Amino acid sequence: MTLTGELLIGAACVPATAGTMRALNPATGELLDPEFAVGGPAEVDRALRLADEAFDSYSHTGPTERAAFLDLIADRLEAVKNELAARTSLETGLPAAQFEGETLRAAEHFRKFATVVRQGRFLQATIDPAQPERQPAPRMDHRMQKVALGPVVIFGASNFPISYSVAGGDTASALAAGCPVVLKAHNAHPGASEIQGRAIRQAVTEAGLHEGVFSLVRGAGNEIGEALVEHPLVRAVTFTGSEGGGMALFRRAQQRPDPIPVFTEMTSVNPTFVLPAALAARGAEIGTGVAQRAQYNVGQACLKPAILLAIDGPGFTELRDAATAEVAKTAARTMLTPGIHDSYTRNVRRIEEGGATRIGAGADPIRTWDGQSLLYEVTGGQVLAEPALRQEVFGPSILLVRLTDMEQLHHVARAFRGQLSATMHAEAADRAAAEQLLPILERRTGRIVINAFSMPQEVSNASVHTGPFPATSDSRFTSVGMSAIERFLRPVTYQGFPDELLPEPLREANPLRLWRLVDGEPTRN
Amino acid sequence: MTLTGELLIGAACVPATAGTMRALNPATGELLDPEFAVGGPAEVDRALRLADEAFDSYSHTGPTERAAFLDLIADRLEAVKNELAARTSLETGLPAAQFEGETLRAAEHFRKFATVVRQGRFLQATIDPAQPERQPAPRMDHRMQKVALGPVVIFGASNFPISYSVAGGDTASALAAGCPVVLKAHNAHPGASEIQGRAIRQAVTEAGLHEGVFSLVRGAGNEIGEALVEHPLVRAVTFTGSEGGGMALFRRAQQRPDPIPVFTEMTSVNPTFVLPAALAARGAEIGTGVAQRAQYNVGQACLKPAILLAIDGPGFTELRDAATAEVAKTAARTMLTPGIHDSYTRNVRRIEEGGATRIGAGADPIRTWDGQSLLYEVTGGQVLAEPALRQEVFGPSILLVRLTDMEQLHHVARAFRGQLSATMHAEAADRAAAEQLLPILERRTGRIVINAFSMPQEVSNASVHTGPFPATSDSRFTSVGMSAIERFLRPVTYQGFPDELLPEPLREANPLRLWRLVDGEPTRN
Repeated sequence: MTLTGELLIGAACVPATAGTMRALNPATGELLDPEFAVGGPAEVDRALRLADEAFDSYSHTGPTERAAFLDLIADRLEAVKNELAARTSLETGLPAAQFEGETLRAAEHFRKFATVVRQGRFLQATIDPAQPERQPAPRMDHRMQKVALGPVVIFGASNFPISYSVAGGDTASALAAGCPVVLKAHNAHPGASEIQGRAIRQAVTEAGLHEGVFSLVRGAGNEIGEALVEHPLVRAVTFTGSEGGGMALFRRAQQRPDPIPVFTEMTSVNPTFVLPAALAARGAEIGTGVAQRAQYNVGQACLKPAILLAIDGPGFTELRDAATAEVAKTAARTMLTPGIHDSYTRNVRRIEEGGATRIGAGADPIRTWDGQSLLYEVTGGQVLAEPALRQEVFGPSILLVRLTDMEQLHHVARAFRGQLSATMHAEAADRAAAEQLLPILERRTGRIVINAFSMPQEVSNASVHTGPFPATSDSRFTSVGMSAIERFLRPVTYQGFPDELLPEPLREANPLRLWRLVDGEPTRN
Repeated sequence: MTLTGELLIGAACVPATAGTMRALNPATGELLDPEFAVGGPAEVDRALRLADEAFDSYSHTGPTERAAFLDLIADRLEAVKNELAARTSLETGLPAAQFEGETLRAAEHFRKFATVVRQGRFLQATIDPAQPERQPAPRMDHRMQKVALGPVVIFGASNFPISYSVAGGDTASALAAGCPVVLKAHNAHPGASEIQGRAIRQAVTEAGLHEGVFSLVRGAGNEIGEALVEHPLVRAVTFTGSEGGGMALFRRAQQRPDPIPVFTEMTSVNPTFVLPAALAARGAEIGTGVAQRAQYNVGQACLKPAILLAIDGPGFTELRDAATAEVAKTAARTMLTPGIHDSYTRNVRRIEEGGATRIGAGADPIRTWDGQSLLYEVTGGQVLAEPALRQEVFGPSILLVRLTDMEQLHHVARAFRGQLSATMHAEAADRAAAEQLLPILERRTGRIVINAFSMPQEVSNASVHTGPFPATSDSRFTSVGMSAIERFLRPVTYQGFPDELLPEPLREANPLRLWRLVDGEPTRN
């Protein structure tokens, strides 16, 4: 595939209207070819008009047709795996092998949503049959299903340039829901975005769908984001990135004449609590495990286990030493963008000014935008006193918190804002402590892990990627796991309909063989 | 029950801190005893602190205990039925018999949510068992359930002083979800609010729950609303009322440092489309039916069929004449508040200035705040040209729209903003027309009715009360029907948990006998 740098608006390749930009190889400082078109509000308008035109036909595609389309996207992604991995490696400074894996996982993600579409449970088909004899008044036949919201705008994330970007879970779940997608490509990986965008567009064409089902736009500064969330035809927005960026979009969308749902996934320190018996039994193993996960993707991961907490006692030294040793052997690696590198440097300084003591470090940086692995230690009292110590540092740093006792552990646990995940290491002897900690964590996070690590993240029916603010802007939804589709659906009730006018999922004979709730009982009849 | 006029904050009766107010009988202009306490931010703070204290224990009540509490509320409401109906009649000028029925329906609503709690499907328990042999990496055990959001603030509505007020569906669904409730009583019916609030509080006490599970506050002007939606401990808000009031609360909540979900149900004209064959066959019957429903509760209903549309042709005259006759025989009745009456007068003037022709009227008003039933006619062209004609008039008026042809009908249907309901009258011969109109309505409304009327509203699994903006602020949720509970829940995943630490709904043996999704298949095993 030859990269042209154009915007992909429906079937059209649209040249620059607001200048051009080039990708940076952060490992070498080299600017990469080609030049990429930058668009503005006119291109946003064109993409959203097409998405709106596509909505009626696309949202009414049957499960077989829509699932086949998602499978086709998976095939098209796999077909470009090597060139996508190579280009992504150039644009991130990270190894190509990582992105081959990420491409395969992204393809698998589309296949999983194809299964979701075929099974049709996301429609939540519900039937309350007529009760003509009911007293004091008869009940009419009521049937409910979920329908697609409308065109969705998705902001690609910087840190996982495939699985949280153009071909990420947001796109897969929105398309599965029946919503056309206008994707705002992240400027850190324009080539990777174009390759993914062309793969999806090819699937749109091959499936014979309306061209407006998918568009890819790119822009500079805040202008493009504002144009996207303020456009009258967009019906929902998703974003993964910083709290500042996410909240700016969120607030702008809520100030529209007609506010629209915005799901932002923003910030999390994923605290890891090591309870006393687990600390004594496995302190070193846990220290190594946390330090390893914290290095993944140069620490640029929303699920990085950033804060490790334990009560001083047997095993604490082993935990500390193992983490220190693991960090010490880590090479400095280039970060995704100069901006992320600068922000890492700034945030590390912030926690140092907040009183954290550096107790370990990886190899010194060599290249301009290398991020050095760092390990800090603080006391529980410091964490309670200084909010900066409870905030995310995006990059390869870890904060070890030395607690005095269980009471302080509870205080610190309660001091955290909303989290994507929280982890507890506990042995059988820790049971009472675990039972006390659980409700505190449950109230503050979307996922609780026992005796494992916050990463990797499973993508399944029971997995979620959400949490109370500021982990996300709406903890009732998730951006990962099969229920991510619920962000893009709304219920509609059909009352008193003759069978032939009902949508297929609600017809009396259940032609799609769906699980439906009939008179309060789940059934496939 | 003696009305004391106090605020009900947990178990305490709290006297006025910001003056007092009295209820008005709008039929007589008489101010009713007693004086009711007005509170402010200090009382809001006290109620929300108690609600937060109650959260951990209440949100972890098991299904049996929580369902029994909801049933107990139903019993306590029924026990005060007569005095509640009598007082509500005094405070609204509407007949007591109407409120006896409304009390029974409100009690039934709590019993339905008790069933929802016992069945436990709202937990959406989902289990992806461990797959230790999976390649390339094993899968850990993942289990997901929904948990309660936290304390909920509910604004009682003015127009249904029981079923959309203190003991309304918002309270029933929030308590069913496991959320403590702080209720802001509407100042139009303080006595009715106190009676309901005391009934609920009695149930809290008898059930042995934490006193913070329910509080009732009252305030003046915008101050109390602002204090409620801005309080750091509130986690969700519901509101039923005007677009202006709802959006003010919504926007304020979205400007919090930590935005919270606000579900507002605001405005709808519930358009009724009469297709040609149905018009020819049943024009008179439909005209009468719509006109009757539009008078219910003196037209002060969110589901009032306010706009009646038909293509000029056979049956149109009959439709028009029947509606005119029905309106003509309607007495003027007192409206709920002087404010609502004034607003009705103003809005009727607005549609007259918008070009609507008065073609029918009920009896002239006698008392100060009587609302006269009115019937207007306009052309499709006028409705397309003048947005004011497509807006809600809260009160007993109907707008009949004379359309030229099917194309204009489609244009007008597309011109409506989001609606709670839309109705279609169609005979077999109208099938093609119905099929064309359906996707237009589906995109703009939460409920589509065929060959019946938008009222009354069913409360069942398959019924919803929602719609795209401005019908509600978030069409993904509903305020009526059993899925109203979803507004107050968020998913939590439990990963790698030993069975004894899992919440009961997720334990391996399924001790609650719930329907659960296990490895992608619904089962009760």
